[in-house]
Amino acid sequence: MEITKQWREHFKQLRAFDEAISLLYWDMRTQMPEQSAPLRAETIGYLSTEAFKRQTSDSFAELLAEMTATEELTPTEVRSVDVAKTQYERNAKIPPAEYQAYVTLVSEAETAWEKAKDKNDWGTFAPYLEKIVAFQRKFADYFGYETHPYDALLYDYEPGMTVEQLDELFQTLRDELVPLIRQLKSSKHELDWSMEAAVQEQICHDWMRVVDYDLSRGRLDATVHPFEITINRRDVRITTKYDESDFRNALFGTMHEAGHATYEQQIDEALDEVGLGGGASMGIHESQSLFFENFVGRSEAFLRSVYPRLQERHPAFQDIDFDTFYAGVNEAKPSLIRIEADELTYSLHIIIRYELEKALIQGDLTVAELPNAWNEKYREYLGVEVPNDAKGVLQDVHWAGGSFGYFPSYALGLIYAAQLTETLKSERSDFETLVHEGEFGPIKQWLETNVHRHGKSLTPNELIKQVTGGDISVRPLVRYLTKKYVTE
Amino acid sequence: MEITKQWREHFKQLRAFDEAISLLYWDMRTQMPEQSAPLRAETIGYLSTEAFKRQTSDSFAELLAEMTATEELTPTEVRSVDVAKTQYERNAKIPPAEYQAYVTLVSEAETAWEKAKDKNDWGTFAPYLEKIVAFQRKFADYFGYETHPYDALLYDYEPGMTVEQLDELFQTLRDELVPLIRQLKSSKHELDWSMEAAVQEQICHDWMRVVDYDLSRGRLDATVHPFEITINRRDVRITTKYDESDFRNALFGTMHEAGHATYEQQIDEALDEVGLGGGASMGIHESQSLFFENFVGRSEAFLRSVYPRLQERHPAFQDIDFDTFYAGVNEAKPSLIRIEADELTYSLHIIIRYELEKALIQGDLTVAELPNAWNEKYREYLGVEVPNDAKGVLQDVHWAGGSFGYFPSYALGLIYAAQLTETLKSERSDFETLVHEGEFGPIKQWLETNVHRHGKSLTPNELIKQVTGGDISVRPLVRYLTKKYVTE
Repeated sequence: MEITKQWREHFKQLRAFDEAISLLYWDMRTQMPEQSAPLRAETIGYLSTEAFKRQTSDSFAELLAEMTATEELTPTEVRSVDVAKTQYERNAKIPPAEYQAYVTLVSEAETAWEKAKDKNDWGTFAPYLEKIVAFQRKFADYFGYETHPYDALLYDYEPGMTVEQLDELFQTLRDELVPLIRQLKSSKHELDWSMEAAVQEQICHDWMRVVDYDLSRGRLDATVHPFEITINRRDVRITTKYDESDFRNALFGTMHEAGHATYEQQIDEALDEVGLGGGASMGIHESQSLFFENFVGRSEAFLRSVYPRLQERHPAFQDIDFDTFYAGVNEAKPSLIRIEADELTYSLHIIIRYELEKALIQGDLTVAELPNAWNEKYREYLGVEVPNDAKGVLQDVHWAGGSFGYFPSYALGLIYAAQLTETLKSERSDFETLVHEGEFGPIKQWLETNVHRHGKSLTPNELIKQVTGGDISVRPLVRYLTKKYVTE
Repeated sequence: MEITKQWREHFKQLRAFDEAISLLYWDMRTQMPEQSAPLRAETIGYLSTEAFKRQTSDSFAELLAEMTATEELTPTEVRSVDVAKTQYERNAKIPPAEYQAYVTLVSEAETAWEKAKDKNDWGTFAPYLEKIVAFQRKFADYFGYETHPYDALLYDYEPGMTVEQLDELFQTLRDELVPLIRQLKSSKHELDWSMEAAVQEQICHDWMRVVDYDLSRGRLDATVHPFEITINRRDVRITTKYDESDFRNALFGTMHEAGHATYEQQIDEALDEVGLGGGASMGIHESQSLFFENFVGRSEAFLRSVYPRLQERHPAFQDIDFDTFYAGVNEAKPSLIRIEADELTYSLHIIIRYELEKALIQGDLTVAELPNAWNEKYREYLGVEVPNDAKGVLQDVHWAGGSFGYFPSYALGLIYAAQLTETLKSERSDFETLVHEGEFGPIKQWLETNVHRHGKSLTPNELIKQVTGGDISVRPLVRYLTKKYVTE
């Protein structure tokens, strides 16, 4: 077989495994009878191992070497080989026995973290975290880096991103946000956000129709933790959680996941054949969910257009005027918990985590010092006192799961989203009219052409440069937040 | 690794593939967004090929040889090796190129059959069937047989069964049934069986609760064609079709599939580890679905107990007395279409197909002669005139799909079910009370102990002998049908 055909065959096989594993997971969260859980876990584990073997086998190494030596590849194929080669080499650099020990440790650490968070008992979790940090530091050395070990870890989430770039972006953003947040006035309105789950579901469907999330290639289901999952390019499913005490969670959560899903649906299918399907990075992916959730969903243009229908479905809001509703869904205030934070304060939660995990990886901070460092930064950046570790350093699973380098993607998502939205608005001056009229065709089209279809064939840097004409910058986000939360 | 551990590892891997493939299929029929179909087909195809490769690879052949040479295997392991070896050798006997040509032919033949049935055009389908029969005759030669080529094909559906046995069973059954059917009086009642789908669904759930189909290890969903599918031993799902013009289909269809599912749920999990999970044969599996559908579901004891609740849910039946209802769900009359046939006449539809396909495989009948032979047998056995081929020889997909040797399982299912029920009743003289009281625990327990838990570790013959103390016999079925349709 021709070598480029073999190359495509390899990714076709991986795609089949991916579809099976994704569906097994989705079904576990949405449909599966309870007693199936242990066998399902076994099946997912086995198929994941099989898929991993195909990416690390000697025969794949040979194929990779042949592709590398092949001339006359298309630019997409060249990029495909680059990405696969980097991943292969990263996988090969970790001694299998060490990786196995690490996987076991992480699995135990997650259980320990859950208990520690429950009991507000940092002491029982700290020893696990110490070992995980030690592993991550060693992995960074195995992977190799030029200036900062943390750079080596960033690759898994934000390829091409460096500490140097992040430091600059996040320092500027922090310096802009901290005084901005000090100016916030406390909210005047206390609304009752409770709503029956069935009504929430109807409104979620209304909103999905408005933003044109394609249900002939997707689904919406209910789960405990909302997620988007790509079964295949024409079957991209989302889930939401109907919290009957606060319907904002389901509505904006659905918009968020619909943003992820629209990205996945609009990636060029041909890229799957060379392993470049999927988002450019975690950050770019998050930018698309945040675009739908915040830049569209929480915008005045969108909310004004959907509010009358919402009032019809939810008569309790018939006497609440739009301004009160709008203020209520755009409430911003410093808080303790990242996942409950608003779009204004959210980045500071991320910057705190970034600064801390970077220091852990560099060796400038010990795990023992972590809780105090956490509490100090919350005081300094957000002006809040952390009452206990459960609501502080223990709140997120990421570190217990070994995900060092992941947090920055969340803030990068906001930064990218603001940059892309600014460009989109400059090219489509009718943007707000389109949003208000529920005319999402041209918006989805713009996103497809400029962002979605490229998949992983561009790095985040390349993508942002190509779309905005400039580098990654926090300015658009600062402008957006200042306008929305201070000026207006 | 110890050889028996390797053996178990092999089946553990196959089980994982099976779970993934089954779920991909189930999801396609129940949940999948429409546009996903082509990619889903590709994924199922790829994973099925991967699973097949594992059963036909050189390394599996070595493992099999080592196991065969190993002494001190447990009886279950010995049986496991036997079954796997027979299957391996059957697979190896067909030259791959011929098998590939056959797979392509069958795929084309199914499409041709669909069109031919639609247009009542036997002539366009006949050439395909000729080629399929030629392949099947050749396959029978490859597989090898002692007395009749059809024996070689039976193995896939009813291991151990032979033409000699079937001829005797089916001739006796035919000779008993033909005169019995002549005595049938035509039904006096014409009921309106229409019912809203939502109400049908409620009643299906009522009935599932009564027969104790375990929904913590299963599900019920709606599909165009009902089926039971095993995702894993603790996740056995069934589907039904809510035909609003006749609710009998959904109710008894659900009982039928719940019977298959209960069997699958009660197979000893340890047998999955050695490839002996699953039913003993198609016929034994069918016996369990028919036990639930007919021997329980259509029995007076069961129907009397569930009728009041059905009347509550379906007020249109409030003035229909039980006897009329009972007669209506037990209507028996000669008919043209197998899948619409009642339990009394059903076997004759099967016997006709068996006699015809056996003759085709032996070379005693040509495809050209088939429609006339079909019509003659319907006249002779069932006393009905076949008006056209669409309602005659073209009605079933089995032959187009290359399933020669499959049909007997349906009638064997009835035969086995009657034998097992007779034994069950003799051991549990309170059987009808249990059914009437909705006390299914002891009945499920009996089935588990005597039939279900053994999986494929016993052949159908062995199983029947072990449970009933005798050989396969049509006598219990004849007694059951005579009592129900003539004496009473």
